[in-house]
Amino acid sequence: MSRFAYVNGRYVAHRAATVHIEDRGYQFADGIYEVIAVCRGELVDAEPHLDRLERSLRELKITMPMSRAALAVVMDEVITRNRVADGIIYIQMTRGVAARDHAFPAKPRTQIVITARRTKPHPRGVDEDGVKAISVPDIRWERCDIKSVSLLPNVLAKQQAKEAGAYEALFVAPDGTITEGSSTNAWIITREGELVTRPSSNAILSGITRRVLMSIAREEGLTLVERAFTLSEAKAAREAFVTSTTSFVMPVTQIDDAVIANGKAGSMSRKLRQRYLAHMAQGGQA
Amino acid sequence: MSRFAYVNGRYVAHRAATVHIEDRGYQFADGIYEVIAVCRGELVDAEPHLDRLERSLRELKITMPMSRAALAVVMDEVITRNRVADGIIYIQMTRGVAARDHAFPAKPRTQIVITARRTKPHPRGVDEDGVKAISVPDIRWERCDIKSVSLLPNVLAKQQAKEAGAYEALFVAPDGTITEGSSTNAWIITREGELVTRPSSNAILSGITRRVLMSIAREEGLTLVERAFTLSEAKAAREAFVTSTTSFVMPVTQIDDAVIANGKAGSMSRKLRQRYLAHMAQGGQA
Repeated sequence: MSRFAYVNGRYVAHRAATVHIEDRGYQFADGIYEVIAVCRGELVDAEPHLDRLERSLRELKITMPMSRAALAVVMDEVITRNRVADGIIYIQMTRGVAARDHAFPAKPRTQIVITARRTKPHPRGVDEDGVKAISVPDIRWERCDIKSVSLLPNVLAKQQAKEAGAYEALFVAPDGTITEGSSTNAWIITREGELVTRPSSNAILSGITRRVLMSIAREEGLTLVERAFTLSEAKAAREAFVTSTTSFVMPVTQIDDAVIANGKAGSMSRKLRQRYLAHMAQGGQA
Repeated sequence: MSRFAYVNGRYVAHRAATVHIEDRGYQFADGIYEVIAVCRGELVDAEPHLDRLERSLRELKITMPMSRAALAVVMDEVITRNRVADGIIYIQMTRGVAARDHAFPAKPRTQIVITARRTKPHPRGVDEDGVKAISVPDIRWERCDIKSVSLLPNVLAKQQAKEAGAYEALFVAPDGTITEGSSTNAWIITREGELVTRPSSNAILSGITRRVLMSIAREEGLTLVERAFTLSEAKAAREAFVTSTTSFVMPVTQIDDAVIANGKAGSMSRKLRQRYLAHMAQGGQA
């Protein structure tokens, strides 16, 4: 639990941290966010996360409210005040507070909330046993490349996964291809040994962990193919996993009723997970 | 401007009315809302609005936090405290406050915000001159029947309309049909004199004004056809208009560069608008 939050220029006790009822984030989902991992007190891959944050703002024509240098100072302070060694920092920016009207306010003032909290280690054995995923229809809007707080379909999908005893819900487009997970990017390793993930487009978030893992895969000399793959392909794959800031590289060993390979995390997934954990421990940006 | 707001059991000064930074409405767009017109101090068509509010909650599995009777008392109080004779009341309910996690909280407590404010009369002459609309691709999610606060695409569309000097943006599906406006339902009157509006489905909000107007149209003996119509059809229509709680029946006399008929509101639109205004003055539920 975050103990202190930064809200629009002030550090406040988390329990008393509030935003106005006419904050456009609250009324219209008119805002964006980022989650950055903290490893041994250091931000992991902060630069690409902040690049993406600025891109999300630009796409929505929301003004970046402070310099990156100032933001870095605030993030450090939030991490320190919350005594986070291993955990996450959460940054949300919205288009401001104004009398409710769909169109942009005349004088928008970007609102900022930053919190940080410790996270639990992943459950013991998950790197070998992997997790279960379910498939759900992708009913989201067509700008999933923007990391907006318009997350209601993701919420509903994740809840469906939870109720099915699964870790993640994989979104399936009308053409049968998996777009991504409700809070992760999706990958498979084919029986031919190719590492496959969907190319960046408006249909998925360009995950930072995804990008880092692509670099790692190239360093490892793996055959990396960016193409869409179907749910059927994933179920028949040699290995499958999902990636995100908090999932790292998470082996998927069952999708719906289909057990992937022998039901244990495959060797390539395990190796990539180890490599990614090492990357995090170095503060990212290898 | 609302002067007092009801927030989770308390009446607070509007400027000091806040929600927690981990309210799921703020972080996930995990909530719903309703806007009800107030005419001469009385709520217009409150019952169908509250029916729809409860339906939206059910679809998202959010608990209705209080009885309708209690809600009615609160709404009256908010209207009175804000001295609203003609205006709107806004009700927002979200899934509660919890440490950020996509899946539903273990013990969700529905959060409620209710505000009321006066609205300006529509500009003089708008009933004769009508308004301009633009068309935009419908990129929204597939559950537009739920009146959720997941409104970011609507915000972007409305802003695009505003920048084009237009009143509304009409969403156009890939098949060329108009689904609805960014905050209104869309209607046309064909050259054959048929009154046409899209049938209810997951693609549109089932507008209360839409439903009332359907009753009025039947009373008037008009030929009402519920079917999807294309943007081209709309541009070539005899009349066009949009409906909503705050737009009432608003004649549309231009779509993109196409002037509808002679560029003035048609007789049927004007008659329906008058009938609807009379309905409002009677408190609705005729």
